[in-house]
Amino acid sequence: MKKTMKKFVPLAVVSTLALGGIVGVQQQKEAEAAKDSKNHKAKNIIFMIGDGMGVPYTTALRYMNDDAETVEMEPTAFDPHLVGMQSTYPEDDAENVTDSAAAATAMSSGVKTYNNAIAVDNDKTDVKTVLEQAKENGMSTGLVATSEITHATPASYGAHEEQRKSENAIANDYYDDLIDGEHKVDVMLGGGTKFFERSDRNIAKQFQKDGYSYVTSAEEMKQDDNKQVLGLFAEVGLDKMIDRDKKQPSLADMTTSALDRLKGDKDGFFLMVEGSQIDWAGHDNDVVGAMSEMKDFEQAFEVVRDFAKENGETLVVVTADHSTGGISIGADGNYNWDPTPIQAAKRTPDFMAKEIEAGADVEAVLRENIDLELTSEEITSVKKAAETNDVTKIDNAIEKIFDQRSGTGWTTDGHTGDDVPVYAFGPQQEKFVGMSDNTDQAKRIFNLLKNKGKIK
Amino acid sequence: MKKTMKKFVPLAVVSTLALGGIVGVQQQKEAEAAKDSKNHKAKNIIFMIGDGMGVPYTTALRYMNDDAETVEMEPTAFDPHLVGMQSTYPEDDAENVTDSAAAATAMSSGVKTYNNAIAVDNDKTDVKTVLEQAKENGMSTGLVATSEITHATPASYGAHEEQRKSENAIANDYYDDLIDGEHKVDVMLGGGTKFFERSDRNIAKQFQKDGYSYVTSAEEMKQDDNKQVLGLFAEVGLDKMIDRDKKQPSLADMTTSALDRLKGDKDGFFLMVEGSQIDWAGHDNDVVGAMSEMKDFEQAFEVVRDFAKENGETLVVVTADHSTGGISIGADGNYNWDPTPIQAAKRTPDFMAKEIEAGADVEAVLRENIDLELTSEEITSVKKAAETNDVTKIDNAIEKIFDQRSGTGWTTDGHTGDDVPVYAFGPQQEKFVGMSDNTDQAKRIFNLLKNKGKIK
Repeated sequence: MKKTMKKFVPLAVVSTLALGGIVGVQQQKEAEAAKDSKNHKAKNIIFMIGDGMGVPYTTALRYMNDDAETVEMEPTAFDPHLVGMQSTYPEDDAENVTDSAAAATAMSSGVKTYNNAIAVDNDKTDVKTVLEQAKENGMSTGLVATSEITHATPASYGAHEEQRKSENAIANDYYDDLIDGEHKVDVMLGGGTKFFERSDRNIAKQFQKDGYSYVTSAEEMKQDDNKQVLGLFAEVGLDKMIDRDKKQPSLADMTTSALDRLKGDKDGFFLMVEGSQIDWAGHDNDVVGAMSEMKDFEQAFEVVRDFAKENGETLVVVTADHSTGGISIGADGNYNWDPTPIQAAKRTPDFMAKEIEAGADVEAVLRENIDLELTSEEITSVKKAAETNDVTKIDNAIEKIFDQRSGTGWTTDGHTGDDVPVYAFGPQQEKFVGMSDNTDQAKRIFNLLKNKGKIK
Repeated sequence: MKKTMKKFVPLAVVSTLALGGIVGVQQQKEAEAAKDSKNHKAKNIIFMIGDGMGVPYTTALRYMNDDAETVEMEPTAFDPHLVGMQSTYPEDDAENVTDSAAAATAMSSGVKTYNNAIAVDNDKTDVKTVLEQAKENGMSTGLVATSEITHATPASYGAHEEQRKSENAIANDYYDDLIDGEHKVDVMLGGGTKFFERSDRNIAKQFQKDGYSYVTSAEEMKQDDNKQVLGLFAEVGLDKMIDRDKKQPSLADMTTSALDRLKGDKDGFFLMVEGSQIDWAGHDNDVVGAMSEMKDFEQAFEVVRDFAKENGETLVVVTADHSTGGISIGADGNYNWDPTPIQAAKRTPDFMAKEIEAGADVEAVLRENIDLELTSEEITSVKKAAETNDVTKIDNAIEKIFDQRSGTGWTTDGHTGDDVPVYAFGPQQEKFVGMSDNTDQAKRIFNLLKNKGKIK
């Protein structure tokens, strides 16, 4: 009884002293765990990247999750684990705002490089990635993404190419580049059949011959328990979470499947999980799609968090490669950001625009997919766009309704240079605290891999 | 000799392991200091607020400070001290993006309230502030700002009013509200003669009668060494740093003067320093003004940092109340943000616009105040605006040149809801680590004030 009481005292103290607020109790627990974490080794490392997930996105997720019945804005799943921020600039002659390739290369290899580079430096020389180091150490490895698995971020962990657009070559790299005679990525889950099942070469078949399972639906992925797997669920990227049919898994589903396959390795594993399309929605200035992908990423994080807490030997780091779209919570002088209209969308504007372009009735599509009473002006704006039969104009007209109703602003269809948040927990989490540069993440992980097994 | 070597080992190790990167060595030192800081009491507390200083502003400052000759982007003075971020939402029926009054009340009192509230809660009841608690504890107190000293942020530490616009009443509060028979703010430095030297009442004179010095220029401030002072250097807010004449002190000057007066108190002091006009420039969508005020704030921070390092008993916390303008580093699809044109401005667009409105020649004003070869289109755009004789239109035309040349985007002339950075160092800094809410800052400081003197 006394022991139990003692356990609860810190919570009571925190509450009485009103320390910590939004995530105080959780943080207090984490801080206590952290004290011990220095003495623990990180057997497994999970690195999660919210592509484009700048600070306005993580804050907007909190507004989205908020229970309006309470005064407090409830924390996101990420909040209790915030440890700092990182800078993201590339080393590029013409541009000082990064793309996803240079940023992922920085995080995978510790080397600053030019925009478009896939794990090569400014001299176009291959740079070793933490995934490759993990495989050299005899660990299992995995890449999970909602983009094609050959897209810039996952590619920068498992391939080396001078240009990110060389996605066929990246798929080739995944098969051809061996480490100690073995394929370097054991688990690949995402989109991209187009780059694997090609007329010149069928890499999916080649992987199968070498003992990998090849799965192309959520159900097939679930039924299969092979340690090595290639899972491709779309020709290129997956649909956004709220647009997906049952055939396409969620990021959480893919993450669960990856962990199930990787966790048995006595030498540990390295897994990179990307919420790829937060960025794509940002490029499109689509707040509905962006929040769909933030939820998808948060749910995947919850899977990782629960695994790591149970496992006790897993370091988890979550960050973003850059921010996208110059999104703002509040726009045009408005001091309010309303998540309600975004929550009312059952599909993305892209999805609706495609239906309208294909001939569906504007009012019917809007009524079916948005749980809001639209004004006649709003409906007319989409009808007018529909007359052009230009899917982009229709998409933009629908997006504008959500922007105006929610109070969302945008400044660009590209990236922005502002620092992004860093979250971490598990053994050695303290190494990720404070202000860092994106290259630091790889340097720290290399160091952990070098010292793996040794209790420091 | 051995002892010296030992001292240098951690630096060497950090460098070899490539840990920490951007601010690694500094952070390593801080981490070592932090280990001991739990056993130290914070005798003095300095709370610094960059009004409107969201993440894009602190990142932009790093781009501004960058030495283009080096690959690395040099850290700002703030970077080594990053400990987390905070949420800023108010408790307001109509708005969920905060204003400066609600945010400052949250940080001064720990209470969420409505926009416009000056240290009163949603029932319009006064809430105790950390400055008042410090004075009750017998400590000296100070407020320093580049706005009028009666503006929302400083007011929320030293006054109680239902509406922030009641600046006469706020000045009255500073004089009339006593704690144990004494005025509650010993040092007040900023702008706002208009609210003190009034036809109905001369509060500056009243303060003088009670033993305060009253100074109205940088030189007078420097010559005076009275412990209690009212310093007002402009009718309302001061000019932006790059527009100031010698009569107006910098924020660093005012901070130095405040510390000189406060540091002798054996009971310690509480000082709030605000970089007030980062926000004002943000409202104006003026990137030149915003960077001027970021530099002013950074220099004031350097004064505080150097004092606190020397002093050893001073806790320093730096944060923002909210972000302003929806500013972005990169805009309109451009992956570059160029500080050069901003550095080329010798005055703000506001300053130039006023000269042009007053009849000065457009080309002469631009040539004199901007160290750039402007295009004929750019000059024509300002000339066209000058024809309207509307100072706002002239200002906007000049701002647009800087936005387009630098790659700066804006979404609003108001505030945005994204989380803002938190920096801390000194004794008890670990209490400010991780994700917090703005109310947590007051709760933590109240707790420190409650336990002052006790080594915890």
